[in-house]
Amino acid sequence: MESRRQVYLDHNATTPLHPEVKEVIRDSLEIFGNPSSMHEFGRASRQRIEAAREKIAAFINASPQEIIFVGSGSEANNTVLSIFACSSIHCSCGTPHRKSIITTAIEHPCILESSKCLSERGTNIVMIGVDAYGKVELLQLQNALNHDIGLVSVMTANNEIGTIQDIKTLAATAHAQGALFHTDAVQAVGKIPLDVRDLDVDFLTLSGHKIYGPKGIGALYVRQGVPFCPMIRGGHQERGRRAGTENTLGILALGKAIEMREKEMGEEAKRLQEYREFLIQTFRVKIPDLHINGHPQDVLPNTLNISFDGAEGEAVLLYLDLAGIAVSTGSACASGSLDPSHVLLATGLSPERAHGSIRISMGRGTDEADVHYLAEQLPAVIARVRGMSSAYVKES
Amino acid sequence: MESRRQVYLDHNATTPLHPEVKEVIRDSLEIFGNPSSMHEFGRASRQRIEAAREKIAAFINASPQEIIFVGSGSEANNTVLSIFACSSIHCSCGTPHRKSIITTAIEHPCILESSKCLSERGTNIVMIGVDAYGKVELLQLQNALNHDIGLVSVMTANNEIGTIQDIKTLAATAHAQGALFHTDAVQAVGKIPLDVRDLDVDFLTLSGHKIYGPKGIGALYVRQGVPFCPMIRGGHQERGRRAGTENTLGILALGKAIEMREKEMGEEAKRLQEYREFLIQTFRVKIPDLHINGHPQDVLPNTLNISFDGAEGEAVLLYLDLAGIAVSTGSACASGSLDPSHVLLATGLSPERAHGSIRISMGRGTDEADVHYLAEQLPAVIARVRGMSSAYVKES
Repeated sequence: MESRRQVYLDHNATTPLHPEVKEVIRDSLEIFGNPSSMHEFGRASRQRIEAAREKIAAFINASPQEIIFVGSGSEANNTVLSIFACSSIHCSCGTPHRKSIITTAIEHPCILESSKCLSERGTNIVMIGVDAYGKVELLQLQNALNHDIGLVSVMTANNEIGTIQDIKTLAATAHAQGALFHTDAVQAVGKIPLDVRDLDVDFLTLSGHKIYGPKGIGALYVRQGVPFCPMIRGGHQERGRRAGTENTLGILALGKAIEMREKEMGEEAKRLQEYREFLIQTFRVKIPDLHINGHPQDVLPNTLNISFDGAEGEAVLLYLDLAGIAVSTGSACASGSLDPSHVLLATGLSPERAHGSIRISMGRGTDEADVHYLAEQLPAVIARVRGMSSAYVKES
Repeated sequence: MESRRQVYLDHNATTPLHPEVKEVIRDSLEIFGNPSSMHEFGRASRQRIEAAREKIAAFINASPQEIIFVGSGSEANNTVLSIFACSSIHCSCGTPHRKSIITTAIEHPCILESSKCLSERGTNIVMIGVDAYGKVELLQLQNALNHDIGLVSVMTANNEIGTIQDIKTLAATAHAQGALFHTDAVQAVGKIPLDVRDLDVDFLTLSGHKIYGPKGIGALYVRQGVPFCPMIRGGHQERGRRAGTENTLGILALGKAIEMREKEMGEEAKRLQEYREFLIQTFRVKIPDLHINGHPQDVLPNTLNISFDGAEGEAVLLYLDLAGIAVSTGSACASGSLDPSHVLLATGLSPERAHGSIRISMGRGTDEADVHYLAEQLPAVIARVRGMSSAYVKES
C-alpha cells in the first residue's frame, strides 16, 4: 500500500500546502503576540501581518487598507451579501437604500444558501441563468437590473466546470445601473491574472486553501468608499470591519502563498492547459459517449469536467480512488448530497447526465506521469462502471 | 538587546503555542485533503478532525455532535446572539418566539458590539450590572427576566479582572423563566474546570489562542435540541451549522491544546495562585495607593488587575515594555481606544482610576523568576510614572 501511486487531481476542492508556505508556518510558530497588544510581542505580530497584507493587496492591484482578513471564502461571501440586508439606520455601512441582489444559478453554495436565507428574511434576490457553457447571459443581467438592485454577485470562475466570466463587462453593466459588483474569485485567484482596478469590481473574495495556503484563512477586497458593515462584531481588528484576534499564522502563510502564486502561476497555467488538451484528446478517442462540460475557451486551465453516459460519477470516483487517483463529482461543499450538481443542471444538462460527471482539477504538483496515469486508468474505469450499469448500452 | 530579559504576562490577550501543539502543527502539514471529499485524501482529514472534536467535547463533558468549530470566540458569540434575531419562518432554528436578550455590562466587546447592532435592528437587549467585584447581580437578572427573554448571555470569567461568575445559579435562574443560557467561557476554559452538563448551559464559547493553541480557531458548544441557525451559510460542514472548509490544521492544534490543558491546568492553577498572592503582598508593601480589582476569591488564578492612583496605565505599560515585561491595560480587543475600561467602570471605578490600571495575566510558562522580576520592576515604574504626574501627590 505504501508504494501505491497517489495522484491528487482535486485541486479545486483544496490544495496541499506549498513547500515555502510550510516553511513560513514552521518559522512563525514563535510569533504569538496579539497584534492588538501595544507591547513588543504584539508589535512583532502586527508588523508581519501588515507586510502580508501589502503582498496580497499588490497581487490584485488593491491598496492594503482595502484588504480584510477573514476565516474563509464562505465568510467573505456571506459578509458581502449581508451588507444589503442591513436595516439599522445607525450602522457604519450607511444602510444601503437599494436592497435587492442579483446573483446567478451557478454560484457556490455559500452565495446560494446565504441568498436563500436573506430571501426568507425579506431581501429580494433575483437569480439569473447561464448558457450551455456556463456563461452568464448578459441580456438577463441587463433585464434584471433596476433602481432597487444594490448588488450584483457573480463568481469569476466556476469551481465545477471552470467557466470564466467576463467580469469586466458584467461589473460595468451593474455600475451603469448604479449597483455595486461583487465577485467570488476563490477559484480564479492564482490561476488567472486578476486586477481589481481593471475589472472595476467593488468586492472580491479569495481563499487561502485553494492556492496552496492553509484552510481557515481568506481575504475580502472592499473597494475604498463602498458601504460595508461587519458580520462579526466586537474588537477594532481589521479597521473595525472584522472582529476577532487576527489569525497570524494563517495570514503570514496566505501572504507567502500569494507570493508564490505570483511567481509560479504563469508557467503553470501553460503547462496545465497542455495537459488538459492532451486529456481531452485521449478521452475522446478512448471513451465513447463523453461530453466536455464548461466553456471551450474561457475556462480555467486546470479544470476539466466530463460527463459519461451510463456511468454514475460517484462510482467512477470510487474506482479511481481505489487506483489512487483523487477526483470529485463536483463541489466538495455539496458532497454528501444526492442531488445532481446545480451548476450542470443550470447549463441545461439532464439530471442523468449531471449525475454521470466528474471534475478533474490539476495543480502545481501535477506532472506528466500523473496525467498519463489518469489517461490510462479512466477509460478502464468507465468501461467497468458502464459494464455494471443496465442503463448503458454501448453504442460504438 | 538579544540577551534582554523578556517576561510575557499578557496571557489573557493571547498565549504562545504549547510545544506539543507546535509539534502537531509541524506533523500535520501534509494532511491537506478537504474533509468533505470522498476520496482517501479527504477521509484522512475527516478522521483526524473527528478525533479532535471528541477530545474537545470530552474536556467540557459534551457530546462530539454538540461541538461546532468556528474561526474565533468572536464568531461564536456573534452567532449565538444572531439566532435570536432570526425572522425567517422557514429557518432551521425554528425561529425563536422569544426575541429579547439579557447580557451584562462587563462582557467582551464581541457580545457588546453585536448586541448594539442587534438592538439597532430592533432586538430588545437588556443590560444588567455587576457589583464592585464584577459579580453579576442575581436580583437584577431575576428582575429582568420575563416571557420575552429568549437568551441570557453571561461570560464565565472576565478577561480584564478575572472575576468568575456563578454560572450554575445564573443558568438555573434563566431556565426557570424559560430562557436559554449562553456563556462566553473563552477566558475560563483551561484555567478552571468546566462541565457543561453540571453548569447546565445551552451554549458555551471557547477559543484556541487563549489556551496555547493557534489563533483563528474556536469552538461553540450547542446543547443538542436547542434552536440554532448558522451565521455563515453554504456547504454542509459542521452538520450544516457553519459553512466553509474546515480549518484542519487549526482544529488538530486545538485538540492537542485541550489535551494538554487537561493534563496541566490543575497544577498550574495552584502555582499561579501562589504567584498571584505573592505579587499582591509585595505590591501592597512596595506601592502606596494601589487597589486590587476583581473578586477577592472568585477570580482566575492567573489574572491580577491593579489600579494605581496618579499613574496612567498606558505609561506603566510602556515602561514595563522597555524593561521587557509585557502586560496590558485591559482587553487587547479594546486597545487603541482612549476610553477607560468598560469593565472597571461597571464595577464603579471612577474614569481616572480605571485609566490608572494594568492587567497582569500569567500562564503556563510563567515562573518564579518572572514574578520576582515583575515584583522588582513594577514599584520602580510606578514611582517613576507618578513622579511625572502633576496630579499625584504621594501620601506615604
